[in-house]
Amino acid sequence: MVRFATSNVNKVEEVVSILEDYLIRIEQVNAKTMEIQADNVEDIAKTSAIWAAQESKSPVFVEDTGLFVKALEGFPGPYAAYVYKTIGRKGILKLLSGVSDRRAEFRSVVAFCAPGGEAVCFLGIVSGMISAEERGSWGFGFDSIFKPDGGGGRTFAEMPIDEKNRYSHRAQSVRKFADWYLKSFRGP
Amino acid sequence: MVRFATSNVNKVEEVVSILEDYLIRIEQVNAKTMEIQADNVEDIAKTSAIWAAQESKSPVFVEDTGLFVKALEGFPGPYAAYVYKTIGRKGILKLLSGVSDRRAEFRSVVAFCAPGGEAVCFLGIVSGMISAEERGSWGFGFDSIFKPDGGGGRTFAEMPIDEKNRYSHRAQSVRKFADWYLKSFRGP
Repeated sequence: MVRFATSNVNKVEEVVSILEDYLIRIEQVNAKTMEIQADNVEDIAKTSAIWAAQESKSPVFVEDTGLFVKALEGFPGPYAAYVYKTIGRKGILKLLSGVSDRRAEFRSVVAFCAPGGEAVCFLGIVSGMISAEERGSWGFGFDSIFKPDGGGGRTFAEMPIDEKNRYSHRAQSVRKFADWYLKSFRGP
Repeated sequence: MVRFATSNVNKVEEVVSILEDYLIRIEQVNAKTMEIQADNVEDIAKTSAIWAAQESKSPVFVEDTGLFVKALEGFPGPYAAYVYKTIGRKGILKLLSGVSDRRAEFRSVVAFCAPGGEAVCFLGIVSGMISAEERGSWGFGFDSIFKPDGGGGRTFAEMPIDEKNRYSHRAQSVRKFADWYLKSFRGP
């Protein structure tokens, strides 16, 4: 059983579904994590994990995701959650109206930390395109405007969770973490 | 002499010019401050000041500014610097194209902290409108797309620094800080 510090139920659902394959169960901790301002997701996740481990006095992991749109100089980047809450998907689509280069990248970082220790990070990246309009009803956040490469032109929101989990940024980072966790704490 | 932790030379210039009236001289400290993610500028400035005082082992102040656009649910808010670096002024104008409610607010917070102490905050707010296009060459950041109320329809970038300092958000917060500082450390 591993503790997962987050208040995002959608993330919990995805992570539970991925970790089932590894027979790892998680307990959601609603510990308020402290997120710093930084241009990369790793630094934010690392600081959050150290903070959450201190607060909850137990080993814990966090997951942080950024959306990096090439034509927007990486915007919204690590501030995807704030941008989602304010200008939202419609804002991103408006910023890209008339823009032909729609390449974008989701980056997910899982950071694990035990109290008093260093944080260990695991990165998952998926490349794709920002769609012309919102499509699909699965998923959350920017899923309905992101078409991952290899997804046949469909957005993440047009894929059931099992299919998204086959190659999403979050699935990659969580799987790397799971492999490491099993090796580290349950032996080879 | 008071230490000002910032790496923004434009801010230094404005703050020096405001504090001249109070005969307060400042020393710029390039201490890397840690900024947290929060929806309000106060919390960010407070944490930065505590951090900067610890790092530089001396009393220090920081200044943090947010731009809150009403029709964009407060975006870019406290992340104005990151948004400026990525989508910039043109991005804000594009997000507001076709939007009639162009009301916005600049909020500036000065936070002062001595090592081991609490941070003291001073808030300055100026209301105005986002202009239809960039205008003027003074100032920095979003100055050329912000028309403060009472400015005769001109943007901050169309006003020389002395005029901007008569009513800007930053001038207000810095003046409140200066009044408090003189009373606290030089007596009545």
